[in-house]
Amino acid sequence: MTTTAIISSDRVNGTNVYARDGEKIGHIDHLMIDKSSGRVPYAVRHFGGFLGLGEEEYPVPWEKLTYDTAKDGYVTDITREQVEGAPRSDKDWHGNRDYEQRLHDHYLVNPYWM
Amino acid sequence: MTTTAIISSDRVNGTNVYARDGEKIGHIDHLMIDKSSGRVPYAVRHFGGFLGLGEEEYPVPWEKLTYDTAKDGYVTDITREQVEGAPRSDKDWHGNRDYEQRLHDHYLVNPYWM
Repeated sequence: MTTTAIISSDRVNGTNVYARDGEKIGHIDHLMIDKSSGRVPYAVRHFGGFLGLGEEEYPVPWEKLTYDTAKDGYVTDITREQVEGAPRSDKDWHGNRDYEQRLHDHYLVNPYWM
Repeated sequence: MTTTAIISSDRVNGTNVYARDGEKIGHIDHLMIDKSSGRVPYAVRHFGGFLGLGEEEYPVPWEKLTYDTAKDGYVTDITREQVEGAPRSDKDWHGNRDYEQRLHDHYLVNPYWM
């Protein structure tokens, strides 16, 4: 069997995400694609609604995820508390550079557009 | 309205592809993702089965597609004849470097893994 890291975008959805200690902490709901460059700046995780106000998206910068072939999943050093403490998104966050900047600051990574 | 090029991977599927002369020549069926790097090496187009032998995948190197915001679609200089003359894929082409090399040679682009 060949060892390949190329799969259909559909099949990334649902891939598990693990903490450094091996605990499963969630899964990827879908990816965001930069239509121009063909880069994937974010993986998005969904959680239940906050205080019953409906569902929110929790985008995580792609570079915080490392693919682990043995686990067939992504490992991250992001904690649940970090995700829960991240700047709140809304439906229109795509391309809201102010929000995106705060998100990258929160996760201490350089913006993908720099 | 903000001009953003970031959208959900689900929504890239179905995006139209146009020739340089503006003719619609197909649409994107799905994307391939490099699970490690978060790059998109290919967009895949489906056509009907060839001689009734079933459906084949027609992967096209991403860099041959240019996103056109006015069209909300991709423009390419690849012709239908080029796609039809491309090396034949099979179900197991993902990670078949020999096939991928021939595909990139066919489209005169440098392999994404170089």
